[in-house]
Amino acid sequence: MDQALDRASAVADALRFVPGETKFANLDTRATPGQSDKGQAATQLLDLDSRLEGLQERLWAESVGGGERRVVLVLQGMDTSGKDGTIRQVTRSLNPQGVAVYSFKAPTAEERRHDFLWRIENAVAKPGYVGIFNRSHYEDVLIVRVHKMVPEEELSTRYERINEFEHRHSDDGVVWVKCMLHISPKAQKERLLARLDDPTKYWKYNAADLAERARWGDYSTAYSDALEKCTTDVAPWYVVPSDSKWYRNWAVAHLLLGALETMALQYPPADFNVAEQRRLVEAAP
Amino acid sequence: MDQALDRASAVADALRFVPGETKFANLDTRATPGQSDKGQAATQLLDLDSRLEGLQERLWAESVGGGERRVVLVLQGMDTSGKDGTIRQVTRSLNPQGVAVYSFKAPTAEERRHDFLWRIENAVAKPGYVGIFNRSHYEDVLIVRVHKMVPEEELSTRYERINEFEHRHSDDGVVWVKCMLHISPKAQKERLLARLDDPTKYWKYNAADLAERARWGDYSTAYSDALEKCTTDVAPWYVVPSDSKWYRNWAVAHLLLGALETMALQYPPADFNVAEQRRLVEAAP
Repeated sequence: MDQALDRASAVADALRFVPGETKFANLDTRATPGQSDKGQAATQLLDLDSRLEGLQERLWAESVGGGERRVVLVLQGMDTSGKDGTIRQVTRSLNPQGVAVYSFKAPTAEERRHDFLWRIENAVAKPGYVGIFNRSHYEDVLIVRVHKMVPEEELSTRYERINEFEHRHSDDGVVWVKCMLHISPKAQKERLLARLDDPTKYWKYNAADLAERARWGDYSTAYSDALEKCTTDVAPWYVVPSDSKWYRNWAVAHLLLGALETMALQYPPADFNVAEQRRLVEAAP
Repeated sequence: MDQALDRASAVADALRFVPGETKFANLDTRATPGQSDKGQAATQLLDLDSRLEGLQERLWAESVGGGERRVVLVLQGMDTSGKDGTIRQVTRSLNPQGVAVYSFKAPTAEERRHDFLWRIENAVAKPGYVGIFNRSHYEDVLIVRVHKMVPEEELSTRYERINEFEHRHSDDGVVWVKCMLHISPKAQKERLLARLDDPTKYWKYNAADLAERARWGDYSTAYSDALEKCTTDVAPWYVVPSDSKWYRNWAVAHLLLGALETMALQYPPADFNVAEQRRLVEAAP
């Protein structure tokens, strides 16, 4: 019996976005499916550390042996939804050598001259890595849509191009885990105020966040459409209720665990004659 | 009184390579200057975790505020000297989002068509990051020299070009911490055998390592020259006795601590009117 894996499976079922069924507008940002106890969540999260570390080592080892597989964890969410905090907590047990975090900001002048997926292409994790996208290509159907930065007819084609992109990389060994960290306007307000109450947090505060907050409804519509149109078998979306930071961390860690366990990672066999090499090493001066 | 910082200062003094004085050939791979007790070292290493994490956050925050500074930890050493293990232990407390590890392998066909520093240029950490070089541009005066891959006259110019490169990046905000993990042939033999004794470690074993081991003397000469010629005020070398893994981890963590503390990192001040922003946030719907 594997309780952690059972929990991972249950949380994936509870949070998976199902096109045509899940109503984004109805999702509760304060829900905690699978775990209602904060203390127990903390203990279970700690218990995952060595397990995630071991799975990551096997993923890395597999790539040294020639494997192509890797994981890309995509994190999206409104400002203050906790993308940075999630990365901090979920990767704390991982070897940074095998973790590649990409933070997508407003595209540079050069990036803007290319197709919107051009800069994403280079950021996709290499074999053996756990890649993390802090924001992603979904910004190109979120902020870009809300601010009408591209014509409607171009925007409408992007969802399908995203699906093709994710499918192609899935064929190439990428396991996608896409998480939308879902918070309420109330939670956001509390977090913005907390940043203004602590001088060591001023650097996290961005006055422009308020302008985006004013478009909350537009963002909700944009998220709803992105989830509806870009949830595929090879690249599912999970909507993680994130008003409670402890639940958010617990849930994302379990989603990552589930993805890694499903890969059935194994240490590669020796590609040399072990007995012969042992003789050579022992005989070396 | 800051005991951790005192230790960091003492270990830096003990391990710093001093051109014209330090004799590489005389350095003891089993020495443990500054800490002879394994258990105490483990406790002190644990105590550094939250401190290194806090310093890293301030380094990151400084860059968000426009700062240019970053750290690059260079790790060199013979095969099995523990570069990977050091990265695992020394970065375990750091936020992977602010850590960028580059592992330098044999150059690609494209890289070989450029100057040897071309590929290093792109790998230098961006502002706010703790960058780690797992091997580095020093391979271009180590393995390249031992195997005579470039003509003598080109090789002889590389030391000065490395110094210029490191100096230029230092001017641009890079704090260099260069560590040579120094092991004995005996320790290497034990570690190679350990990899052959455990099927979960076969992937770490590389039969080609034995051929390099056979050139130990040539490598020692190459290391000695590199340390002698490329130790500068802005980019010092530390030779870390690494037969004991616990000492190696303890020492490198303290060297990193010392470097970060010397930077006197501060959270940036608010670049906005705090009281006004609080009013705006409170008034937001």
